Amino acid sequence: MKNLIDEIKKIVALSKQDEELIKSNYHIEKYTKKQIIENHGTKYNNLYFVKNGCIQLCLINNKGIEQTIQFSIKGWWLTDFDSFNYEKQSFYQLKAISNTEVYKFSRTNLNTLRIEIPELERYFRIVAERAYSAALYRISLMMNMSKEQRYFNYINNFPKFAKNVPQYILASYLGLSPEYLSEIRNKNTNIKPA
Amino acid sequence: MKNLIDEIKKIVALSKQDEELIKSNYHIEKYTKKQIIENHGTKYNNLYFVKNGCIQLCLINNKGIEQTIQFSIKGWWLTDFDSFNYEKQSFYQLKAISNTEVYKFSRTNLNTLRIEIPELERYFRIVAERAYSAALYRISLMMNMSKEQRYFNYINNFPKFAKNVPQYILASYLGLSPEYLSEIRNKNTNIKPA
Repeated sequence: MKNLIDEIKKIVALSKQDEELIKSNYHIEKYTKKQIIENHGTKYNNLYFVKNGCIQLCLINNKGIEQTIQFSIKGWWLTDFDSFNYEKQSFYQLKAISNTEVYKFSRTNLNTLRIEIPELERYFRIVAERAYSAALYRISLMMNMSKEQRYFNYINNFPKFAKNVPQYILASYLGLSPEYLSEIRNKNTNIKPA
Repeated sequence: MKNLIDEIKKIVALSKQDEELIKSNYHIEKYTKKQIIENHGTKYNNLYFVKNGCIQLCLINNKGIEQTIQFSIKGWWLTDFDSFNYEKQSFYQLKAISNTEVYKFSRTNLNTLRIEIPELERYFRIVAERAYSAALYRISLMMNMSKEQRYFNYINNFPKFAKNVPQYILASYLGLSPEYLSEIRNKNTNIKPA
């Protein structure tokens, strides 16, 4: 349990009472590799914090291929906020990449927590602004770098992320085909698989 | 002044006193077309809300071309949150696209407001989650659609935005060259310039 509370306390202060309230407002869930957690065409009713493992938000593109839009490793949040906040049908799927354990917060429980612990609004504001900045940075890489540059830029700047997701997910996330990633890696034999 | 307060009140309740406090914590600034508001290589100390006109966050790419990473029209917020929140040097430029009037909030004033009006944390959390969702949607378009599909998808889904920015900015934002955009538009003579 320590890691969730610790992550929050890196950003905002929590009293012992706040910690207990948080503990009583989530469910721990386990998913097996490739299990669908929330499906496209449905409303997302939960926000997830990864305790162990890895999950992704993906869509099935017009070639029938699963495209990774966002992934979260241990210590990071994930949902489709548009679907979760506005109760809209999602066009993404939320899936386990590996065997995964999460803290799952329902909309109702999260609303309770935000009312009881107003500091959590500040916490989630900062988390969202960080995620937004990272998404803009990713867009700037997609627009201005070759696929090869994008890959090396990512593994150099975010080694923890690059090491904690399968390479085919990282390839998809960066807009590279798995074949192209193999090609790059074969050319650069000093790059070891995660 | 009405539009800023009204935008906030669409999401959270404000007392008359809150409204007065907000009014005493911003500066109205005017910028001329193409004026640099915050420069790359510097720390951004302000958050901007567009009163009239249009501003963009851009970078000069390795071909020396200005690449639009994000733009904001009337009623929308913009800054480099990574630079603003963590006092890091930005690699973006913030520039006026047209003659523009903004409400400018310094970091200090915004911190005061967030302490005095905790509901603003909720407001900015929701604004950031919406911006993050929109950025992921844009990534999914970039990955899964041709440039032409991307353009038509955008103007059909976001006509208000498409009509309120110059076409060369929209082209850059969607990763199209201005020449390619002209080509698409010439093929589809029913599309009128904004």
